[in-house]
Amino acid sequence: MYIPDERLRKQMDFVMETDKCKQVFRQTYISDGSRKENDAEHAFSLALMCSLLSEYAEEPIDRLRTMEMVLIHDLVEIDAGDTYAYDAVGNQDKAEREKIAADRIFGLLPEDQGSYYRKLWEEFEAYETPEAKFAHTLDNAQPVMLNDATGGLAWREHQVHKSQVYGRNKKTKEGSGKIWEFIDRIFKKNIEKGNILE
Amino acid sequence: MYIPDERLRKQMDFVMETDKCKQVFRQTYISDGSRKENDAEHAFSLALMCSLLSEYAEEPIDRLRTMEMVLIHDLVEIDAGDTYAYDAVGNQDKAEREKIAADRIFGLLPEDQGSYYRKLWEEFEAYETPEAKFAHTLDNAQPVMLNDATGGLAWREHQVHKSQVYGRNKKTKEGSGKIWEFIDRIFKKNIEKGNILE
Repeated sequence: MYIPDERLRKQMDFVMETDKCKQVFRQTYISDGSRKENDAEHAFSLALMCSLLSEYAEEPIDRLRTMEMVLIHDLVEIDAGDTYAYDAVGNQDKAEREKIAADRIFGLLPEDQGSYYRKLWEEFEAYETPEAKFAHTLDNAQPVMLNDATGGLAWREHQVHKSQVYGRNKKTKEGSGKIWEFIDRIFKKNIEKGNILE
Repeated sequence: MYIPDERLRKQMDFVMETDKCKQVFRQTYISDGSRKENDAEHAFSLALMCSLLSEYAEEPIDRLRTMEMVLIHDLVEIDAGDTYAYDAVGNQDKAEREKIAADRIFGLLPEDQGSYYRKLWEEFEAYETPEAKFAHTLDNAQPVMLNDATGGLAWREHQVHKSQVYGRNKKTKEGSGKIWEFIDRIFKKNIEKGNILE
């Protein structure tokens, strides 16, 4: 029997493992409001936004690395689950749960690639490089746009307050002042409409 | 009232328009067999595979451009719908339907970007550059892996024959001989099992 190259087999096993993020559902609804969005769809939108909007990055970014970063940034949720941005209890042990998940998931890959993606995920989490800041701006902006498109569906469902959205977004402008302005205007409109509580 | 920058508004409208590809369903099932995959999820997997597997490209490729190519390659299906690979009737006017869709969808963008993505889509369709060939290899390989993971669910549902899968994949090796070998082995296994008909 033919044994496929060990390296390729590990890579393909990883591809099939990451397929599971199509079953990890977020709290945000897709733009027609028909159902919640999953992690694969979210990452798809962020990667496309990264290609489309990199001109607005506050500092020059490596677009390829940022696209790879957004593609893998939520893979840990395959094991750790999605923790809603405004879930105070779930966010207490989030970091620990996600670290264990990262060990397992990136550990499926050949060592060089496992280490590359692991570091990219840690860079995203550390929120310090221009790439990580821009990735976070996109990660924060995309659900806001979906919420706006669906009349604030997830915000209303979770009775989200102004202080929560501004708290979560206090660093969004660090990745892109221009995108932050766009998002802030959506917040103001939805506070006025009562979709986000005062 | 504040009027956001026309350029940014067009880009954000495009982002929301592309969200609709989360409602375009393909014939392939996701890896746990629970439901069919949509275009956003498919593009997510291809982009990740592009990052992960570019070392196997038959000729050197620009990884960023190839990732952008796979991210946008199915956006025309928002208007034109998904045409199953083995649907002979649907494939007759597919090119025409998709051209009209490309005019509208990429036409939403500022001219420079609309033209960039339109050309990238045409490059994919033309199947000539190393990037287009590798993108097609991934586009062909990913559903094969999902079909294999689900015991040939979509193949059995559509009573797909060996001649059809080999016909569709006659150029897959041009993008990557190594990935083609991996896929061909999956075909052989599934022909033996009767999931693909002789």
